Amino acid sequence: MRAAFYEGQEKIRIGDCAPVAPAAGQVQIQVSHCGICGTDLHVFHGKMDHRVTFPQVIGHEMSGTLTAIGASVKGWAPGDRVTVRPLDPCGACPACRNGHSHVCQKLKFIGIDAPGAMQGLWTVPAHTLHRLPDNLTLEQGALVEPIAVACHDVRLGEVKSGEFVVVLGGGPIGVLVACVAKNEGARVVVSEVNPFRLKLASSLGLETVNPLETDLVGLVNAETGGAGADVVFEVSGSAAGAAMMTKLPRVRGRVVVVAVFSDPPKVDLFQFFWRELKLAGVRVYEPEDFEKAIAIAAAGRLPMDRLITNTVPLEGLGSAFRQLESGGEVMKILVSCA
Amino acid sequence: MRAAFYEGQEKIRIGDCAPVAPAAGQVQIQVSHCGICGTDLHVFHGKMDHRVTFPQVIGHEMSGTLTAIGASVKGWAPGDRVTVRPLDPCGACPACRNGHSHVCQKLKFIGIDAPGAMQGLWTVPAHTLHRLPDNLTLEQGALVEPIAVACHDVRLGEVKSGEFVVVLGGGPIGVLVACVAKNEGARVVVSEVNPFRLKLASSLGLETVNPLETDLVGLVNAETGGAGADVVFEVSGSAAGAAMMTKLPRVRGRVVVVAVFSDPPKVDLFQFFWRELKLAGVRVYEPEDFEKAIAIAAAGRLPMDRLITNTVPLEGLGSAFRQLESGGEVMKILVSCA
Repeated sequence: MRAAFYEGQEKIRIGDCAPVAPAAGQVQIQVSHCGICGTDLHVFHGKMDHRVTFPQVIGHEMSGTLTAIGASVKGWAPGDRVTVRPLDPCGACPACRNGHSHVCQKLKFIGIDAPGAMQGLWTVPAHTLHRLPDNLTLEQGALVEPIAVACHDVRLGEVKSGEFVVVLGGGPIGVLVACVAKNEGARVVVSEVNPFRLKLASSLGLETVNPLETDLVGLVNAETGGAGADVVFEVSGSAAGAAMMTKLPRVRGRVVVVAVFSDPPKVDLFQFFWRELKLAGVRVYEPEDFEKAIAIAAAGRLPMDRLITNTVPLEGLGSAFRQLESGGEVMKILVSCA
Repeated sequence: MRAAFYEGQEKIRIGDCAPVAPAAGQVQIQVSHCGICGTDLHVFHGKMDHRVTFPQVIGHEMSGTLTAIGASVKGWAPGDRVTVRPLDPCGACPACRNGHSHVCQKLKFIGIDAPGAMQGLWTVPAHTLHRLPDNLTLEQGALVEPIAVACHDVRLGEVKSGEFVVVLGGGPIGVLVACVAKNEGARVVVSEVNPFRLKLASSLGLETVNPLETDLVGLVNAETGGAGADVVFEVSGSAAGAAMMTKLPRVRGRVVVVAVFSDPPKVDLFQFFWRELKLAGVRVYEPEDFEKAIAIAAAGRLPMDRLITNTVPLEGLGSAFRQLESGGEVMKILVSCA
């Protein structure tokens, strides 16, 4: 079978890969599709080289069908359609012991710290599996992981029906956060500067604004009777986003930091004091977020097919990375791994 | 009667002042003592000139005795010993309508936006009054306001018994936050660089550390079995404090921003993501915080007399400001206003 290997220094090689028979507690999956995540792009750019032992098979936003079941695995059978929650916690650190194993202090993220999904047959611990309902295609199933990110973010942001929500950044995660928050009954405005992404978000029925053209603070204040937004999601990872996130919330409003800021930006802590704002950092997901993601996806509440702008074969991965880094007319790219 | 007037450009004048008869809903207080707050020092340094109409009587950490009662004021009589919660909210803005009038969007802070307590007779709205129990001296009563700040901060920080708390900054508010958190049953470590304040905090029975001499991160990790602190209070207002506050908390730990950062510092948002940290900005107090402050003060749970390092007459205010800005051997200074 073939796999996509990251070999360091922005090099991807498509080559042969030996399948791994599932050990006790593991399963083997025939991978159907694997989405390209912002994290994969970070890996490609060498920003995760301190964690990735290359050559490494990457990828973690996947769907597939079980092919083999290891010893002592209950409740799963070959042919089951699944997606994977790619977290392998240690079970022993203080975070695990306190019930926060999704942010285990020694977390292995499968696809970064262990081989990922961009290969024909993938072997993973059975505790990572979630079942895909029959009415989701395998292409749609590959979106469950990023939808689970959005469900986690919206849950920890405590978004309630009727609230006014601003999402800073309209890439795949930003748009999914917006869709999930809207599904909770919130009014959602997406702030984005890329014209293609603005147009796409708008075509999905989301309210959009380009903050380079429109006074976003003025708009939010006008639309909330001078109160400000209930919740602001910072998904852009930009200094501009970090500056904007403190200007929008109401008194006692919430800021949810979704983006990964590799360099500490300046943050206006005075505004946190002045309006008694709250901030929550959010990372990956817990099992309930995957279940919620699958439920709302299966219920047809999300425009999944519109978010998949490209599907490429394994050999197309390198050029897909180039397309993503150009910031052009692209949202979610799936890699066909079958 | 005499009063201390801020006249701009670090100028304080002690001069005559006409008493104001209480209108309907107001009371007049013979001021006994008034503490000097960091905010008063900010006013003195001209940093609040956009809010202060000078000449202005300043001061708001006070105690006194009622001398006259305005029309329609119920429940108060001349001779009652009181302290004042110096907030005058508009009652109409979104924050007030949502039950957060203490951070009213048009809040008048009495002593900044309206005449303060450093005068012989002070007239204020009756809704600001809290009764002082007989077993608190008037000197101690002047500490209720900063204790209420600490009670608010600890309450919003959700400090629970048995938790590990770090307080960055051992000035009057930092020490009071530490004392109130300890009173809740937490283990508290105070981080401070000023030797006098370190020694004073230590003599009050608080655990102290000088982060210039001791590896604070290593200490906290060692003392928490590698987990990290449950709650970190940033009270220093320094760039070093803003950098330290994200290094100490455990997974899902809380950072409480108490200090007023006039310039946005760099904040390591990656740590908020990585450990799913939470941050809460906190400002002033609500009525329940004053009641709590009075209760624990009256119960003898706080080393109030030890925190009052100096008591000066009105004429000593200017030199007291100089002493405070020198950062020397001083904690809380009271001004005798009688």
